[in-house]
Amino acid sequence: MPTLIAAEGGYQIFTLGSTEKMLLVFCMAVALVALVAGAVMMRSVLAKDAGTEKMGEIASAVQEGAMAYIKRQFRTILLIVVPLAAVVFATSTAVLNPANNNGLDRVSSGLFRTIAFLVGAAFSGLIGFMGMWLATRANVRTAAAAKTGNMDAALQVAFRAGGTIGLFTAGLGLLGASAIVLIFQNTASSILVGFGFGGSLLALFLRVGGGIFTKAADVGADLVGKVEAGIPEDDARNPATIADNVGDNVGDCAGMASDLFESFGVVLVANIILGVTAFRAIGIRDGAEPAKGLVFPLVMMAVGLLASLVSIFVVKARAGETDALKPINRGLNVASVISLIGAAIVAFGYIGNPAGSEISNVGLRMFLAVLAGVVLGQVASRITQYFTSSQFKPVRDIAESGRTGPATVVLSGISSGMESAVWAVVAIAIAIMGGLALGGGNTLFAFFMVALTGIGMLSTTAIVVAEDTFGPIADNAQGIAEMSDELHGDTERILDGLDTVGNTTKAVTKGFAIGSAVIAAVALFASFRETIAATGVTKVGEAVREGAVSKAFDAVAINIADPKVFAGALIGGTVVFLFSSLAILAVGRTAGTVVQEVRRQFREKPGIMDYTEKPDYGPVIDICTTAALRELTTPALLAVLMPVVIGFGLGSLALGGFLAATIVVGALMANFLSNAGGAWDNGKKYIEEGNLGGKGSDVHKAVVIGDTVGDPFKDTAGPAINPLIKVMNLVSLLVLPAIISLQDNDVARYAIAAGALIVVLASVVYSKQQSTSFGEDEAVAAGANGEEPAKA
Amino acid sequence: MPTLIAAEGGYQIFTLGSTEKMLLVFCMAVALVALVAGAVMMRSVLAKDAGTEKMGEIASAVQEGAMAYIKRQFRTILLIVVPLAAVVFATSTAVLNPANNNGLDRVSSGLFRTIAFLVGAAFSGLIGFMGMWLATRANVRTAAAAKTGNMDAALQVAFRAGGTIGLFTAGLGLLGASAIVLIFQNTASSILVGFGFGGSLLALFLRVGGGIFTKAADVGADLVGKVEAGIPEDDARNPATIADNVGDNVGDCAGMASDLFESFGVVLVANIILGVTAFRAIGIRDGAEPAKGLVFPLVMMAVGLLASLVSIFVVKARAGETDALKPINRGLNVASVISLIGAAIVAFGYIGNPAGSEISNVGLRMFLAVLAGVVLGQVASRITQYFTSSQFKPVRDIAESGRTGPATVVLSGISSGMESAVWAVVAIAIAIMGGLALGGGNTLFAFFMVALTGIGMLSTTAIVVAEDTFGPIADNAQGIAEMSDELHGDTERILDGLDTVGNTTKAVTKGFAIGSAVIAAVALFASFRETIAATGVTKVGEAVREGAVSKAFDAVAINIADPKVFAGALIGGTVVFLFSSLAILAVGRTAGTVVQEVRRQFREKPGIMDYTEKPDYGPVIDICTTAALRELTTPALLAVLMPVVIGFGLGSLALGGFLAATIVVGALMANFLSNAGGAWDNGKKYIEEGNLGGKGSDVHKAVVIGDTVGDPFKDTAGPAINPLIKVMNLVSLLVLPAIISLQDNDVARYAIAAGALIVVLASVVYSKQQSTSFGEDEAVAAGANGEEPAKA
Repeated sequence: MPTLIAAEGGYQIFTLGSTEKMLLVFCMAVALVALVAGAVMMRSVLAKDAGTEKMGEIASAVQEGAMAYIKRQFRTILLIVVPLAAVVFATSTAVLNPANNNGLDRVSSGLFRTIAFLVGAAFSGLIGFMGMWLATRANVRTAAAAKTGNMDAALQVAFRAGGTIGLFTAGLGLLGASAIVLIFQNTASSILVGFGFGGSLLALFLRVGGGIFTKAADVGADLVGKVEAGIPEDDARNPATIADNVGDNVGDCAGMASDLFESFGVVLVANIILGVTAFRAIGIRDGAEPAKGLVFPLVMMAVGLLASLVSIFVVKARAGETDALKPINRGLNVASVISLIGAAIVAFGYIGNPAGSEISNVGLRMFLAVLAGVVLGQVASRITQYFTSSQFKPVRDIAESGRTGPATVVLSGISSGMESAVWAVVAIAIAIMGGLALGGGNTLFAFFMVALTGIGMLSTTAIVVAEDTFGPIADNAQGIAEMSDELHGDTERILDGLDTVGNTTKAVTKGFAIGSAVIAAVALFASFRETIAATGVTKVGEAVREGAVSKAFDAVAINIADPKVFAGALIGGTVVFLFSSLAILAVGRTAGTVVQEVRRQFREKPGIMDYTEKPDYGPVIDICTTAALRELTTPALLAVLMPVVIGFGLGSLALGGFLAATIVVGALMANFLSNAGGAWDNGKKYIEEGNLGGKGSDVHKAVVIGDTVGDPFKDTAGPAINPLIKVMNLVSLLVLPAIISLQDNDVARYAIAAGALIVVLASVVYSKQQSTSFGEDEAVAAGANGEEPAKA
Repeated sequence: MPTLIAAEGGYQIFTLGSTEKMLLVFCMAVALVALVAGAVMMRSVLAKDAGTEKMGEIASAVQEGAMAYIKRQFRTILLIVVPLAAVVFATSTAVLNPANNNGLDRVSSGLFRTIAFLVGAAFSGLIGFMGMWLATRANVRTAAAAKTGNMDAALQVAFRAGGTIGLFTAGLGLLGASAIVLIFQNTASSILVGFGFGGSLLALFLRVGGGIFTKAADVGADLVGKVEAGIPEDDARNPATIADNVGDNVGDCAGMASDLFESFGVVLVANIILGVTAFRAIGIRDGAEPAKGLVFPLVMMAVGLLASLVSIFVVKARAGETDALKPINRGLNVASVISLIGAAIVAFGYIGNPAGSEISNVGLRMFLAVLAGVVLGQVASRITQYFTSSQFKPVRDIAESGRTGPATVVLSGISSGMESAVWAVVAIAIAIMGGLALGGGNTLFAFFMVALTGIGMLSTTAIVVAEDTFGPIADNAQGIAEMSDELHGDTERILDGLDTVGNTTKAVTKGFAIGSAVIAAVALFASFRETIAATGVTKVGEAVREGAVSKAFDAVAINIADPKVFAGALIGGTVVFLFSSLAILAVGRTAGTVVQEVRRQFREKPGIMDYTEKPDYGPVIDICTTAALRELTTPALLAVLMPVVIGFGLGSLALGGFLAATIVVGALMANFLSNAGGAWDNGKKYIEEGNLGGKGSDVHKAVVIGDTVGDPFKDTAGPAINPLIKVMNLVSLLVLPAIISLQDNDVARYAIAAGALIVVLASVVYSKQQSTSFGEDEAVAAGANGEEPAKA
């Protein structure tokens, strides 16, 4: 590969003053405090009573299944991460200051970036693993605490387990980013891209794999259990029931924590890439001043982490309080308020009006951007809540539509899901325009304001993860109590209450996660443009560099009215559709295999139904594990290789069009799929609460079908679009220097594009050729039909 | 409004030579021949035997219902068209040659453009009306012909009725466009935009209104007839059955013909705007040479029309041929071959290598672009066929997934529909890159090549419309035979066969219509960019104009990496989602009202079931008519006003981002919705042919639910996206000069944007507040439950 002068964000010109160094050390200290506090909190959760022997039995079955899955998943991931590490190394370029050749040569930059990539992947994987590991232990302890009749005790176990994961998520993210900035300083941004990519890649794997596992088990269990055999959910006789519980943990806990870890990391990466350049662009170029643009986002994350740490302890039910949502919301509000006070202090006290700025009130603008992020987080959560909670009209309309059967349930859910996407995306568009308004006429600074909106949203990541992880823990606690026959009296009341609250918090944080993912992607997209500009400038040479980046940035036109860019955009949109299609198909296919296995057990062990024989839980876990790992390859290859195909095949500007379309289509589809699924789920619950005929009525049967349709929407395809768009943006940033340097070497670039395209197409064809399990079922079903008449 | 120097495409500098004038007269002559041939063909269809008295009775009920609907619809449309005509007049600008002030002043340009708008609307409406009028007469004659036992006779009636509509569609389109070019010459393009807008607007109304009517009736009839009362489809006892048949005609015939008319018109408009400019851009500036760029697309349409005219007569079953698809495909192939031979003659004989061209082989390039269009038409049709025909894996997989219930049917249909959108959009992206490759490095000429791809696709519009209209005629013929108890023996065999073929042709032409709509929208989008460039150039003055447009065009950057443009793109994507959401919701809501009415009739007239009482068909037709007309307002306002909101509120470049996103998201959603719906429909038919347990089995019940979900997908929301994206592109072209001239007048532009936004939001809120009919049903259902126990 020819030499390149600039990489992502390139060599950034700034010097860290003593205040900056002190603040970075402060960030690292906060991160370490959070990690220690997380560890202490974890110990206190693990020290709680683990319930009766039967509860323990079920819990360990879930733990074993989850561990077996995650071990095999990590082995598979390793097989993909190692070659990718080589690619990360190969695409690295020297990061040098053109003035004095300071910086990293190609080999060191490659080495450090690869290490950062591996560390990012390891952190993201660790978060996912911990989320799952702790959740499978906290669930039984929550159930045991509920048995004491004290709602707050149960809430504490579940929420502090979530808090542990939250503190680890934000703590590791902040630790990694601050350490990289402190160590590498002017070359940090190119190392950070590796860190972010590692985190995103693992999040994608955990989201897709976990999503397929959880919903295949869930749909399979429901289809054959509730629908065919007529036994309730979480009934111990169903051979798929443990797999279903395992799925909750590997899907929701591992996937979501790792997803928010990467949003946190990616937003930081984008801010650090943009910060210094944006400050320089508005004339702030003296001494340590430009470094403030880079330090501010990190300090804000530290402030938010501290605020979250305090607030996790605020979550405590008051005497007589029966609704667990109230203390949780109190905690969130306290975190937001502390975080905003901190933001004001840092923005006015530290940033203020930096010397040389051509724009007034820089500190105020930055504070307002953070505030806008907090508001956007609230708005995104409220929109999701409106469209997915049974307290509001959309979900009630969906439930009502059950009167005319499942078709109208599906139609009204799809219609409502599409509408929810409209308002969620409009909110993001308004936030972007808010960033623009704060930008004072400078495009680079405006993008930095948009990126800071992301910081505002994600500064309280720790408590958001706590809120989210609480959901599946409460859900599983109820399941374990049910299976071990403890779900009655106060225990039932407490656990049902926590489960309902958990569903709300899960839905709300999903809207939040999508919103922050889109903002993170937009910020990365700005970094993409900045990188094209910087590469162009550094090619011209040092003389024009000073102050020229801003002009060059303005001159980079990813012209969507250019046929090539437009073609790139069309293809970008298709990737989101193909990805969603594959994910939904994988769930359907695997669920079919689960159904066959459960039918086989019911047939071969007729005693299961009257409890004289025990079902074998292992095979369904095996099926889901194997399928999830097999099916995650194609979507992952799609995400990693399509930017390579477009970038080398059609050029960097077409890649820009491609990325823009993935963000637009991805934002719409992620909201649509997640919210439609959430609405169906809660529509079903609304009826199960006794409305419109209640459980067992025809209306209920209709909404159960809607709920099943929604399962892969909300827990597989929808949330996996978050890491998808970020992985594609990060891969683009990684390969961009190579694309630009090879842009006149048609043989090389077409060869790379063709190679990547062949791999993608082969993978899609292979994935499509997997015979649909519903088809294979024919033989089994025929066998079953053949046997039964003989018996009858 | 301040004076503006250039409008859409502005004043085009060219002179028509005698050859050009002759060729334009030739185009008009061909159009007139087609219209006369269409009239003759119509008379021959009407002269056929109209069947038994009972058949006549049912046919006239359908005719009356359809007439009642279309009359009221035109009255509603008039209420919207008249104020819009005023807007078209108001936004018109003088179209003058800056060199000598030749051209149209503001009043005449406004007047003529408004007249063109009204003529375009009238033509589009007339096509729709005729399509519906003739189809409701041809259906009974097809059934009567089938009674003679001669398949070819029945095929001839149905296909020639379709052919009549096809000839009128292409004939009126070509007549209007050629006449405008001949009369207005250098100012024609700005008048043509009015013509295209009129055609598109009516198509949008007919598509949305007809789509809601047909599916509300269909879903309502199925829900209460097939599912609740257990009577077959098209059973005369169902009070919704005539409305269902009316719906086929107002939805499929009126909507599709008018849709293809506008695609035909819009592609011509885009070609005429781009043609001269593209020729000048590559150096062809002498004498009559630039005019060739404008005349070529018109002549190609005339050649294709002649080819279609001949080929309609080729559609004739050979002795012993039982599959009607074969003669139809023969006809299509003959039309394509003749058309391509004609293209070669015109491209090489007339265009050749124009003097002054800086690019070689202009004629060859233009021929290849037309050829690419023919290929794209084939590919788009084949992709649709693969994903929607029961002969291939996707539909069979959907049917198989019925084994595990309706949820998996819905999931596999959605997954397969998304995948179909991927390949269809990739095909379009490849076609655009093909146009780029033919462009010889000049962006304007490359866009002209893309626009010519559209000409290649749409030149044989006449026979495509014939193929499409054939579908609902065959469907209705079967329905009428069924209701009048004539569907047995040879008649049944023939009509079932024609119906199946009709379903295939309908599905195939839908893919074709979407593909051509997207290409037309891309060509319009290029005109949008060209208009920004031309406005900029003419502002600078005449001196730089010559040859400067091409440079200015290249300089117009709709930079998707600009926050404002990106925000525009996000909002553009949401419009497609909101539109789809509203359309699906409207169907669900109206179907609910239909269900109530049918239940009421069954309750109040218990004799309906044993044929002692006659159902009252009128009320359901009324419900569907009223609902369709009420519900079409919001989507229509959305389409017309959102470009105004974005254009005035965020500026012309943000509007560019908005349009690009509507095309990308629209192309994906239109294909997804149409193909998923088509696949479910044919999955159901596949099972009804006796596969997987056949009619009445559990698998069948599951796929019937899939089919119902698919109804508003494939016949309401999906196809209406075609006119939606074109209306938005045309409105943008219309208001663009006003946007540019007001871009520095913040008070005026924000006032306009806010006014438009308020109207849109009020309309959406009003539409959402319509109480869902399923809810109202409670009282009726309670009443029913109250009555029945008393009777029992």
